[in-house]
Amino acid sequence: MAQDKTQRRPRAETPKGFRDYFGAEVTERKAMLDKVAEVYHRYGFDPLETSAVETVEALGKFLPDVDRPNEGVFAWQDEDADWLALRYDLTAPLARVAAQYRNDLPSPYRRYAMGPVWRNEKPGPGRFRQFYQCDADTVGAPSVAADAEICAMLSDALEVVGIPRGDYIVRVNNRKVLNGVMEVAGVLDPSDPERFAAERGIVLRAIDKIDRLGEGGVRALLGEGRKDESGDFTKGAGLSAEQAEVVMAFMAARRETGAETVAALRDLVGGSVVGGEGVSELETIADLLDRQGYGPDRIVIDPGVVRGLGYYTGPVFEAELTFEILDEKGRKRQFGSVAGGGRYDDLVKRFTGQSVPATGVSIGVDRLLAALRAKGRVAGDAAGPVVVTVMDRDRMADYMGMVSELRNAGVRAEVYLGNPKNFGNQLKYADKRAAPIAVIQGGNEAEKGVVILKDLVLGAQIAQNATLEEWKDRPAQVEVPRGELVAAVRKMLGR
Amino acid sequence: MAQDKTQRRPRAETPKGFRDYFGAEVTERKAMLDKVAEVYHRYGFDPLETSAVETVEALGKFLPDVDRPNEGVFAWQDEDADWLALRYDLTAPLARVAAQYRNDLPSPYRRYAMGPVWRNEKPGPGRFRQFYQCDADTVGAPSVAADAEICAMLSDALEVVGIPRGDYIVRVNNRKVLNGVMEVAGVLDPSDPERFAAERGIVLRAIDKIDRLGEGGVRALLGEGRKDESGDFTKGAGLSAEQAEVVMAFMAARRETGAETVAALRDLVGGSVVGGEGVSELETIADLLDRQGYGPDRIVIDPGVVRGLGYYTGPVFEAELTFEILDEKGRKRQFGSVAGGGRYDDLVKRFTGQSVPATGVSIGVDRLLAALRAKGRVAGDAAGPVVVTVMDRDRMADYMGMVSELRNAGVRAEVYLGNPKNFGNQLKYADKRAAPIAVIQGGNEAEKGVVILKDLVLGAQIAQNATLEEWKDRPAQVEVPRGELVAAVRKMLGR
Repeated sequence: MAQDKTQRRPRAETPKGFRDYFGAEVTERKAMLDKVAEVYHRYGFDPLETSAVETVEALGKFLPDVDRPNEGVFAWQDEDADWLALRYDLTAPLARVAAQYRNDLPSPYRRYAMGPVWRNEKPGPGRFRQFYQCDADTVGAPSVAADAEICAMLSDALEVVGIPRGDYIVRVNNRKVLNGVMEVAGVLDPSDPERFAAERGIVLRAIDKIDRLGEGGVRALLGEGRKDESGDFTKGAGLSAEQAEVVMAFMAARRETGAETVAALRDLVGGSVVGGEGVSELETIADLLDRQGYGPDRIVIDPGVVRGLGYYTGPVFEAELTFEILDEKGRKRQFGSVAGGGRYDDLVKRFTGQSVPATGVSIGVDRLLAALRAKGRVAGDAAGPVVVTVMDRDRMADYMGMVSELRNAGVRAEVYLGNPKNFGNQLKYADKRAAPIAVIQGGNEAEKGVVILKDLVLGAQIAQNATLEEWKDRPAQVEVPRGELVAAVRKMLGR
Repeated sequence: MAQDKTQRRPRAETPKGFRDYFGAEVTERKAMLDKVAEVYHRYGFDPLETSAVETVEALGKFLPDVDRPNEGVFAWQDEDADWLALRYDLTAPLARVAAQYRNDLPSPYRRYAMGPVWRNEKPGPGRFRQFYQCDADTVGAPSVAADAEICAMLSDALEVVGIPRGDYIVRVNNRKVLNGVMEVAGVLDPSDPERFAAERGIVLRAIDKIDRLGEGGVRALLGEGRKDESGDFTKGAGLSAEQAEVVMAFMAARRETGAETVAALRDLVGGSVVGGEGVSELETIADLLDRQGYGPDRIVIDPGVVRGLGYYTGPVFEAELTFEILDEKGRKRQFGSVAGGGRYDDLVKRFTGQSVPATGVSIGVDRLLAALRAKGRVAGDAAGPVVVTVMDRDRMADYMGMVSELRNAGVRAEVYLGNPKNFGNQLKYADKRAAPIAVIQGGNEAEKGVVILKDLVLGAQIAQNATLEEWKDRPAQVEVPRGELVAAVRKMLGR
């Protein structure tokens, strides 16, 4: 079959920008999401699992922060000429569900969703085209009590997965207050909302960059523009010094308590109707949270939160981890944002024509998991199995019997299933499996009715450590009667 | 904005053949899969999560049972002109992973995987284009001890999720034995394996249909062919009566014990080398399982198992649920197959040129879940939340405080977040949420420092039941001091 040989073999590769998750990477994420789901469940949220595939029509052909149609989405044409696409987030499918089942779902509808989403973007380091999201939303609740609830739930979820109080802060702002400030600064005209839209975009982006650019950088962007270190020039919003001052005062309006911040903001928005509405909403949120014991050590009103340019129409919030980690260059920096969300009242309207109030939060699953790993707080059972080695392949049934006994006693265990000829390979295998114990029974041991247990954890420690003396009273290898296998393994595992 | 009005609104619909899963549908499946994962973990299997998207090249452009390229797969062309596709099963990605990481993975590599797969097929009733699979495979283990292990693990997994011993049976066969029988029947020539391929396909399909067609139907298919009730004619394999007898004897070779079945099969395969090899493998599997206590009440050697036409090269197995359910026409029938698998030694070879032995099992997640539901054995917390109603919207903080207390005590609870004006709507909402209790506090109650608990479960029972007398000592509504809210709710919930 000479022809076969000339056929090129397929490449064994993940597509560009995709990756595989092995072992602990899977179980650690799952353990984290299980804990989050428990909190969401306790808050009365119900799980929803939509399919990965939606019609392009239902998805709306755009990502929240991208305006070109189909940009960033994996899409293809069905044989019926319908365009289908992989979901790019969990909010667009929720909007579709809320419209499709509007007569059957409870209203308000609290739902959570966890799963992969897909973005057809240029992959980069740590940037993948499939990643997890974990969302909770309340659809059909106009009251900001729903936003307050989401913030409290987010705070609880962070603590439950292992971020202690003091290591995180949930910051709350309101788009309406921002709009009020824009009005006072003269870049929003309520009678002509389209006017100054470009300027407002620049202002929002400038506010969002305060951590990175500092006050001076933001002032430059509010005014004529800013030249960065590389010499590149970014055009500014063209605000006068007086106008810029209004915006800067807004960003500096955070005070010790929520009540004080609210008072400062009320001053700033002056006569703006929408601004006043926004301040009142923040006041209600702060009050509701405070009465439930969520003080500023957990949730604060913070005018610095902007949350992208997307579809938010009211309260916006963001959870930030405040502890420091070392970045890739060894410099200390705050870990930063791991979750965010807000109120978006117009998503369902696309389908039904009727406005449906909604608010929700999305947790950046990979970032939160990275934070837990950085703090050494990941759960998930990463322990390797006890490996029963095969000294004599004709006695496979005996070895499988041992494994079976161990498993029935709840001990993770496996028999070596490769070619047993080279015993060194079996120990190398046990090492690769991070096995805590190797069980050995050759012909002699079988005759004597015993098994040998090799403590591989201890063995590794001895190998690293010169002072063997210290380990004298804890031998790395013991011989025990076959009937005591399970008890001896348990003892060696320390349980 | 007259233009806006003329724009057609998008349809709020799942794409054809896809569906959404709500609430208990999600949690019940998750609870089942969590239990299965626990068993797999104990057996030393590690989780693997590959991405949903693969290159068409890596997938191999064909489904196991479909030979036209790209048939049945959702595929699209990347901007780099690469063809990408959604995975159609979990085995093809495993083969890719086994080849891609062959120098890093332990060998043998035991892995499990759970997740959705996609098939671009005509949807039908109960047939969806996205569905869950749950697989466990061992790659790199040539010994049939690996197959025996998979069968034992499958048996354990079924019992752990709630299928009791006696309600299921794992049936084991071997493709090599089948080939031996084909040889004896004269439809397999070891020196020219391609010859009679069409006839063998018909024979395999006929064997697979014994339950449905009975002996007569199968005999017809082995011979000239069969006319079904509708008058349609299916062409047969054209075997002589004598040849057909060999196949029929094979299918009837199951005896009381594994050892007896093996003896009967050894007789049947006569001098066929591959047949003899297959019988010896079955003998080893039966012996290994027997020695671990997996007797014929759980796992049997059964020559009737064929497992499709796919890529199996050795042992094949199938788990069948033996209890009866009523079909859509009210007739009793056995529930049937919920899992299957076998040995496939050539899948990794596509990539590397080197043959890698592999064996594994796939559980039909939806079918197994349906079986558990049919038997009333689903886990998963389907309880609705306690609903705190809102009598006075100015006291939202008080109501949220109640909810907060309940949640902190571990009780699933929520405050009504819709428009509170119509109290009837709030009770309708509680009903839709399957709430066990509604908490009510109007102005009078607030003044008195009490809350009212309405037992909605009991209320529903009373509504259905005429003899109110029976319920006299268990009032459907109680008034308790506000400070005793949590204790009283717990008592009413019966915990």
